[in-house]
Formats: sequence, structure tokens, C-alpha cells
Amino acid sequence: MQLPKGKSNCITDVEGVQVGHVTLYEKLNEQDTVCTGVTAILPHKGNIFSNKIRAASSVINGYGKTAGLVQVEELGLLESPIMLTNTLSVGTVWQGTLQYMLNENKEIGDSTSSLNIVVGECNDSYLNSIRLQSVKPEHAIQAIESANSNPVEEGAIGVGKGMVCFGYKGGIGTASRLVDTYTVGCLVLSNFGKRDDALFADFGSSIKLDTPDGSIMMVVATDAPLYDRQLKRLAKRCAAGLGRTGSNIDNGSGDIAIAFSTANTYDHNATVQLESMSFIRDDHPIMSKLFQAVIEVTEEAVISSLKNADTTEGRSGRVVEKAPLGL
Amino acid sequence: MQLPKGKSNCITDVEGVQVGHVTLYEKLNEQDTVCTGVTAILPHKGNIFSNKIRAASSVINGYGKTAGLVQVEELGLLESPIMLTNTLSVGTVWQGTLQYMLNENKEIGDSTSSLNIVVGECNDSYLNSIRLQSVKPEHAIQAIESANSNPVEEGAIGVGKGMVCFGYKGGIGTASRLVDTYTVGCLVLSNFGKRDDALFADFGSSIKLDTPDGSIMMVVATDAPLYDRQLKRLAKRCAAGLGRTGSNIDNGSGDIAIAFSTANTYDHNATVQLESMSFIRDDHPIMSKLFQAVIEVTEEAVISSLKNADTTEGRSGRVVEKAPLGL
Amino acid sequence: MQLPKGKSNCITDVEGVQVGHVTLYEKLNEQDTVCTGVTAILPHKGNIFSNKIRAASSVINGYGKTAGLVQVEELGLLESPIMLTNTLSVGTVWQGTLQYMLNENKEIGDSTSSLNIVVGECNDSYLNSIRLQSVKPEHAIQAIESANSNPVEEGAIGVGKGMVCFGYKGGIGTASRLVDTYTVGCLVLSNFGKRDDALFADFGSSIKLDTPDGSIMMVVATDAPLYDRQLKRLAKRCAAGLGRTGSNIDNGSGDIAIAFSTANTYDHNATVQLESMSFIRDDHPIMSKLFQAVIEVTEEAVISSLKNADTTEGRSGRVVEKAPLGL
Amino acid sequence: MQLPKGKSNCITDVEGVQVGHVTLYEKLNEQDTVCTGVTAILPHKGNIFSNKIRAASSVINGYGKTAGLVQVEELGLLESPIMLTNTLSVGTVWQGTLQYMLNENKEIGDSTSSLNIVVGECNDSYLNSIRLQSVKPEHAIQAIESANSNPVEEGAIGVGKGMVCFGYKGGIGTASRLVDTYTVGCLVLSNFGKRDDALFADFGSSIKLDTPDGSIMMVVATDAPLYDRQLKRLAKRCAAGLGRTGSNIDNGSGDIAIAFSTANTYDHNATVQLESMSFIRDDHPIMSKLFQAVIEVTEEAVISSLKNADTTEGRSGRVVEKAPLGL
Repeated sequence: MQLPKGKSNCITDVEGVQVGHVTLYEKLNEQDTVCTGVTAILPHKGNIFSNKIRAASSVINGYGKTAGLVQVEELGLLESPIMLTNTLSVGTVWQGTLQYMLNENKEIGDSTSSLNIVVGECNDSYLNSIRLQSVKPEHAIQAIESANSNPVEEGAIGVGKGMVCFGYKGGIGTASRLVDTYTVGCLVLSNFGKRDDALFADFGSSIKLDTPDGSIMMVVATDAPLYDRQLKRLAKRCAAGLGRTGSNIDNGSGDIAIAFSTANTYDHNATVQLESMSFIRDDHPIMSKLFQAVIEVTEEAVISSLKNADTTEGRSGRVVEKAPLGL
Repeated sequence: MQLPKGKSNCITDVEGVQVGHVTLYEKLNEQDTVCTGVTAILPHKGNIFSNKIRAASSVINGYGKTAGLVQVEELGLLESPIMLTNTLSVGTVWQGTLQYMLNENKEIGDSTSSLNIVVGECNDSYLNSIRLQSVKPEHAIQAIESANSNPVEEGAIGVGKGMVCFGYKGGIGTASRLVDTYTVGCLVLSNFGKRDDALFADFGSSIKLDTPDGSIMMVVATDAPLYDRQLKRLAKRCAAGLGRTGSNIDNGSGDIAIAFSTANTYDHNATVQLESMSFIRDDHPIMSKLFQAVIEVTEEAVISSLKNADTTEGRSGRVVEKAPLGL
Repeated sequence: MQLPKGKSNCITDVEGVQVGHVTLYEKLNEQDTVCTGVTAILPHKGNIFSNKIRAASSVINGYGKTAGLVQVEELGLLESPIMLTNTLSVGTVWQGTLQYMLNENKEIGDSTSSLNIVVGECNDSYLNSIRLQSVKPEHAIQAIESANSNPVEEGAIGVGKGMVCFGYKGGIGTASRLVDTYTVGCLVLSNFGKRDDALFADFGSSIKLDTPDGSIMMVVATDAPLYDRQLKRLAKRCAAGLGRTGSNIDNGSGDIAIAFSTANTYDHNATVQLESMSFIRDDHPIMSKLFQAVIEVTEEAVISSLKNADTTEGRSGRVVEKAPLGL
Repeated sequence: MQLPKGKSNCITDVEGVQVGHVTLYEKLNEQDTVCTGVTAILPHKGNIFSNKIRAASSVINGYGKTAGLVQVEELGLLESPIMLTNTLSVGTVWQGTLQYMLNENKEIGDSTSSLNIVVGECNDSYLNSIRLQSVKPEHAIQAIESANSNPVEEGAIGVGKGMVCFGYKGGIGTASRLVDTYTVGCLVLSNFGKRDDALFADFGSSIKLDTPDGSIMMVVATDAPLYDRQLKRLAKRCAAGLGRTGSNIDNGSGDIAIAFSTANTYDHNATVQLESMSFIRDDHPIMSKLFQAVIEVTEEAVISSLKNADTTEGRSGRVVEKAPLGL
């Protein structure tokens, strides 16, 4: 039995979570079209470096270039926005995010420690002239600065602009569920699959676009008080939701999930020895409900990314159509 | 598009793989019923210790007691049968399997190294009087000795005797797929889920049995030449197939997958320095087809375990019914 | 600068920790000698199933058969004693420990969940007629029941009876350190290395015993309030301490570390949704001191196992001498 | 007994391996000094994207920002140079390396797949005005283009320019060992530890520089035919070598090892289904010798980084002295 949806069925239903998009689109000539972008997910409205949050990741298939997971796994903390971009712009977006964070935190690299930045990616080279490297550091900064708590714009927007999913236009999708007093939200960047893989629709056609294997980034947010080990359990459940859409988690697909909780912040500047933390017991029935919520929002966010993505023309005259989901 | 099924839609469609069941069932009195068993999966017909095979595992949810995975992960080798039993009989079945292997290999513990035994489990305490510990070491030996390559008996048999899945009788299930010239088979021990979780049937009822969270063991066999890292990729795909059945991978569920390839054996007694190995390239299209096969056989094996399991009465008069799958 | 040692330089310096040994030694005939045992480590004096503790493991080299780590890693909890025995007695000791725990907890397998048992091992087949399987379930129970908080007997005792380390007699060793108000203790079962590997002594001789590659089990206890992710960090540091002794972490060595904290117990029977936990901040200077303590106690416990182990005669007339450490 | 050293006791003793440094040093004013750089390690002289090599990593302590490990772990392949820089220049060096690789491989992002770039880092902010971000993409390209097979320049050079180790000047160090017909080499970037931690010298002084916890990057190269699982075993042994130097693997230390073998290349453009591979058997005695070699070269490379690093003045008039190792 499906869990109830959040107010806007959106990752921003989780109090404090903000999402910002920068979309780049320009047809340069017959060969080249810029069709890409950046999307930023901020866990709260404060300074993320000063007030870190608990996080964890699950690498479902590691054919991907996501940066920043090593430290997230070691410390169980997120201290930067989660940035999503195209696969060749990880360095640029890392650099732009660094600039933003250095401006916000004058002590980084001077009197205090270093900074860990998380950047995920999918490969939009079917539609986007990716070798042009059109994403610049300032686009990362703009995505962060434009982030807000409104219902998230989905589909061919932000980093979703050039993505292809199940042979139709994919991109940004989101969904949320309520569990007791808590909310679980998910934002995906969908960019995988062939038409006849889909389980949620009968796309019938055997037409295959010559797209790369693709990938999916899945970001799970919750206000349920969970710590890093538990958040890893949530992140791992994305594999089940992904499987329900029809994904076969292909060889070339970078399928990576990151989960965070906004409930327990961790003060960078604290000097006390002991920290206290409240968290939901693993053996309380709510925990399995939270797992169920993750699976449901992952599946629905993928479908929603298709529903909301319009037909898009990219490089070399390639056109990827809106999925015929008959809404 | 679904892949073609193997000859008997069975894990034993993979050449050489053998399965043996020992079923224990006896109503002792109003309180107590023995309703459990042992199932052995042998990767080939030879001496498994002398001719090890490539293997890997994926712990999808680690609320489980499976023994033997540490060494499988380190060396990428399986050197014993894979044994399945109830959660309180891991030690006993380990002991029986040891006895079998020591008899077969007089040099173990004398002139050669030690032995790694793999034993997986699910908790059948809803139907089985598990505290009686009715499984004895000789039952493990019998399961191994009775193993054969016939189509696998499914449902309430072997270790499947006392299992409950989606609120109906579960247990042993199997399925297979063909990919190019290769076969992928799966055997599951299903013991998880509530009625309204099922996605493959509308069980309608809101009746909940007061079963523990349950678990599932998934054993994937293939004759495709793959090595340990690649087999881990296969094992990880079981999560997607499991998700498709409706599982939420609950907190208390030990969901563990083990994958092995029969294609490359590893001679225990070789003294050469260099070994050679052929394997399928990860970037060849067949690899993603193998992933798809794993997902399909996992899902179908779970459903098949229900289809083939008859209504069973267990301890304290508890009855678990055959699932109304209308075959 | 070395940290100060605990009162008895022992794992039992950590309040509540108890250790029990059962030693089996009998010369049966010219060929066969029973030269083995069981050692139990109890984290506290109460019911460990009812009052679980935080724990984690690190598999430094996974050529080993340790059972029970899957669930420790998933839940971050230890709910049984940590049992150590010879490599072919894992099943038997698992079975004996089960018996003990079922007796203590009438509800396991009936009205409550299953039970996870941790059994580690080393291979004592150089001295011990290991194929005789002399360890019985009752020896595990005896080891648990005899556990106490006295200074630990070291050397050729308990499961240490038949072990060989750096070509001399090894076995049980222990050490402890004080960090602020906390204690860190370690107990090792040493069974690895060749004479000319040792860095803490010049054993000079090039005599090589024809021992198997061997292994080491390392159990770290602390009363510092740490949770599972942090305890994994402690367990990983054992590799550095092990390296300092001269170990090359050989192929055939099962080098496995388990760390637990006695500070936060987890009530099995709680029905509340939220749990609270105090823990030391990772960025507090004490954390790195705790890491240092782990490295120091691991190294010293190995050396201490040699210092305290007397010359022992085993099967086939084999004699392993006390290390000439000139104490 | 120590293994014999390679010809130049250098990572470049492994046939084909090349190292390139770009050093940036300029005193800008009383406050600011640029004191940093980039170091590139190339596994062979050909096109690394076209001819990938087997690789694996071990995160000994994950307080680090190394990018690119996710895909290395999934596929067991390295397809770019290994780049080392300061902790705030990961994005920039990633970007420069991308530029280099796109120039070399016109098909990336067009007709073929994406590209995985590996960038490791340490924090040189004690001496370097790191917030100035003096490293530019072209420095990465220069480091790659200047790479050669000569004996590696060590100490305060390349990315080693601003590093501090055991309270003295650290940076780049290297060493090599011979095992049978094979060579094992290591290059480290040393940037950790306090004076009284050192085990290889009595630095006596209790002077503590107020350096951050620091880090170490360890790159292991070999021409021994090993595949990814085995290379991970090598990478894990770095922890033992690191422990021998006296490191306590502090909380804030990003201690990361990457190991690769030049023996089996993997052709990006192959379209065959089956690949063949020769590799050393894990149970052949050479394997443990290779492990020993890794431990020895890691330890020696750290010490060598100090021996070869001259006193360096950095920002705010800070001076880090050459270690008094009495050479």
C-alpha cells in the first residue's frame, strides 16, 4: 500500500531543502548545440560548511565520476551543496562550488580545515555538444544562489536539459512521501534505459536511440533523525526503486545514490568533546516504512522526470521526444 | 523485452550445477512442529575444494547470519557447496559440511590449508519450532549427497519447508535465462514481505501474519566466463529483481546474494606462478544482458517459490496458505 | 610519545570486559596431539542479547572464516560474546554459543528475533591435530561461563594453545592504554609471520617452520563513547599496529579486527521510536589519541603473546619454542 | 629480510612509468606565498584512455577529496594519469587533465564514452596561500607533458613543494623493490604526523607546528601481472607500511592508496566478447613477497620524502625545516 505523498510531491517538501537550476541551451550551428546545465541541492538554508549534516552514499553501479564520496563515507557528513552536472563538467562545477564556499567561509584553507565538495554527473553527450565544455564555474554559483524551496521544476531543466531516459526525454524528476511525522523526498537526474525496458508504460516501439548506457543520480532527503549508517541503508534502497522502473543497471550506467538527513546538524566550530544525537531505532517499524518511502520516491521521481520533460532538439539535429505517457 | 528462459527454467540449467534438499517435518504436539530443512547448491560435479570456482557476494541488507563471505570476498573463490538452512542451524550445517569436506579431502588441516564454508539462512520460526534445533550435521551431508542436476523441486521443500513470503507459503524458487550461448540461473529461499507489498499479484487482503521481517537468500549461477569483480556486479543486480517483486528490503530482512561462474575453475593443487583466465569484457553488450538476466531470474524465482509452495501447518497450529496465484 | 598503560595493561582494564579460556591439551599418540582451545570475550557482565553494544569490524586480510560480521556491519551492534577458536571449530563453537544464548534468552526464536553470533578463528594445525575436531559445543559454554575481569592469562592458553607467531610460540596477548578518562584495550590471537619478519627483536635465525601462512584476530575494546562508524575507524587502525610488528599481512593470513564500545548499550526490548547517543566528536583531539592507542595496543599485544607463551609440543613431535625475548 | 631495491629505488623503475612535476613558488608579500604544485604519474608511455590498465584503491582514512575512485573500483581500470595536487585544486587539475585527454582522444564525448580522471590531494595550507588557487589547468597539462622515466626528483618539488611531514619538510618520496622478475615501486606525497610520532628517527623535540592533521597519497606501481582484486590487496598493505613510519592515521588525514599493474592493458576499442588475462596466483609465494614489497616501499618512500626535502619558507613567514636525518 503506497505511502501518502508530501505536500508538493517534491524533495523540497523536506523542510529547508532547496533546489536551484541553471539551464544552458543554444543551437550554435548544424553540428553543435549547447544543451546542458547545473542543478544544486542544498540541505538547509544556513551555512552548510558550518552546520554540516549527516549523509551517506550507495554506489549501485560505479561507472560514474561523482566526486566527494570518499569523505562522506568516512565522516558521515555533508559540508557542501550536492551539485549535479554533465560528466565532463565535474571539475568546473567543483571549482565554482569551491569559489562559492570560500566566499562564504573565509577561514577555509587559512585557519581551519579543508572542504569536501560533492559533484555528481550524467553523460548528456547525445544531445549536448559536451566537448565544448559550456558549463563554467559561475553557473555552479548561480545554481546555488538561485536555489529555493519552491516545488522543483522538473524535466528538461538544469542539468536535466540534455538527458535521455528510456529512449525519451528525461532529466530532473522528484517525489516525496510522508512517514509518520517525517517526510522523505527524492530528486533524480534520469539518463538511462531503452524503450522496451520500461515497466511503467508500454512504449511498444523497438526504436533504439544510439545513446550511451546512461546513468542516474538519486538524491534522497529526509527530516527523519537518522545517522550515517542508517542513511546508507536508505541510499541502498534506491536500487530497488530503480529496478521497479525497468532499469537493468547497465554496465555503462553510473547509478549513484546519496541520502541525507536534515535533523541532526554538526557544528564545525564546536570544541566540545561529546556530541549528542537522537535517531530512530533500526528495529522500530518506522524504519522499514522509511525504506519503503525511498523505494517509492525513487521510482516515481524517474517516471516524473519523463512526464515533465518536453521534446528537445540537440546537437547534429538529434531530437529526443517527450514520452507518450498520456497525462 | 524478456530474455528467453532456459530449458527447465531452473538453476540446474547451468551445466554442472546440482541441488539437493533435505526436508524435516513432524508435528510433535500441539505446541511444537519440526518444519525446516537444508538445501545444498553444488557448482559442479567434481571436488569443489580441489577445483574452486569464481564467486562474489552482495549484502543487500545485512540483517543475516550467512557465514563464509569474508573469504569469498578476499579471494573471489568458492571452495565448498553453498548451504542454506534456518537461522539457528548455521553452526550445525557448517559442521556437517565440514565433515563432508574433510572426508573428501584428507589433506585439509594436515598438509594443506584450511577450508571456507558458505552457509546462508532464513528465519523459519513462524512455522518451525526453531529452538528445538532439529537440523543435525548429517542432514547437511545428506543434502549434499542427494544433490543432482534434475529440475529443482520448489516451494515448501528442503530449507523452504517453513518459510513465509508475502504472507503466503514461500520457500525455494528458481528460474533461468539464456543470454547468447550462456545460461544464468537463480535459486532463492524466499521468506519476506507482507501481502499488500506484492507487485506481481493483488492479494487484496490486509491480513497480516505476525511473521518476523524475514529474509531472502539469492544464489545466482552462470556458465558465462566472469571473474569475481564481475560476479559481484551480477550479485548486486539481485536488489533490482527483488525490488520488482515488491520487497521493501525491510530492516529485519537478511537479503544476501551470492553469484558464481562455473566457467573458470581454479586448481587448489597447482604450483605454477601464473594463471590464465578468459572473461567477458564489461563493455561488451552481453554484459548488460547478463545483468538483465539476473534481475529477471531473481524476480521470477521469488514468484515461482510462491506458486510451488503448498499450504503448510506449523507450530502452535499456525497455518500458512498457498498463495492464490491462480495457476 | 607512547600513551600511558592501563592498570593491568589488559583488555579487562576496560570496565566490564571479561575474558574466559578453555584449553585442550592431550598427547594422544606419536601422531596426534590435541593442542587447541576456545577463548570468549564478553563486553559486559549483563545479558549481551538484551543489552547490545556498538561494534564494527575491519577485514584487513579476508583469508579467514570469521562468522557473524555481516550483521555487525549492517546494524553496528554486537549481541553475543566474541568467540575465538581454531579454524575447523567455527561451527561447533557457534553451536555452543547458540546453546548458551538460547538458555539465557528464552524468547529468541519464539517471540523475538533471531541471534547473531560472532566467532573468529586462526589455524593451529601445525601443532594441533585439527582434523580430530576436539573442540565441542560445551567448551564454548565453559569459556563463556568462566569469563572474568581478572588480568588476562596470555600465551599458550585458551585458543592460543596451538598458535605459532614469528616462528615461535604465539597465542593470546593483550595490552591497554589510557586516553583522557578512557581506556582502550586489545586482545589478540597471534598466529602469523616468519622469524626474520619480526621488527621488535632480532631473531637472527633463518630457520623456517613449515607453518601455514597463519592469521591474527584482534579484538579492541573501549569505554570511550563511540558509535559504529567510529569503531570501524578504530578497527582499521589495527593494520598499522600489525604492520609495526613486522607482519607482511601474507596471502593466507586471516587478519581481522573487531572493535566495540561499552559506553552506549542498546536495549533489545525498547519499543520507543527514538534513541539518544553521546559520542566523541571525530574532530576532537581525543579521537586521534584513541587511534594511536589502538595502534599501540595492537602492536604490544602481539609482542606480549610471544613473551607469555611457553615452549609447546604438538602433533607429530613438533615443538614450537618460546621466543628468546630475554625478559 | 628486506627485499632488494630496484635500479634507482624509484617508482620509475617499473618499466614505462613516468612522473612529471610542476612546482609553483613565489613569495608575493609578507602574508602570501605561493608554495604548491602538481605531480602527474603516468602508467605507460602510450595513450592511457585507449590502453587502460588494471588498478584498485584502498581508502585507509577517507578524510580526503580524491576524485575518480568510484569508477576505478567498479571496473578495476585506470584510464587517465594519476594527478596529485593541493586540496583546493582538485577541480582545476581535473579540468586541466580533461583538456589534455580530450585533445588526445577526439572521440571522447562524441562517438565514445565518457572519461574517468583520478586526482588525489593533500592540504598544503600551512606553507601555501591555498586560497589564492594558484594552480591552473595548464599546470596539470604541463605536469603530464613533462613526465618522464628518469629517477624521480623528490622532496619539496611538484605538489610536494608545500607539504609538511613529522613536523619537518615533507613532500614527494619514492622507493622500489624487486620480487623475482618483477618490480614494485611507490610514490608518496607525505603531509602528516608530528615530530614525536616518528619511529625511524628520534626527533626529540616536542615542538609542534600548528599544521592541519595532514594526509598522505600513496601510489603503487608494478609490472607484476595482477588484476583489480589483487591490486586492492596491494593497496591495502600500504596501511602497514604507513604504520611503520609512526603514523597514527589521524582523524583529519586523508590516507589513500592507489595500486596499478602495467602488465595487462585493456584496449578501449576492442569489440571482441572475450578477453584473456594472465595473473599471479594468490597462493603462490610470490604474492606475499609482493605484499612485503608494498609495505617496504611505502615506508621507505615516506622517509625518502623527508631526506630529500629542503627547508622551505612559506606564507606568513612560516619556515619548515629539513629533517635532521643526518645523511
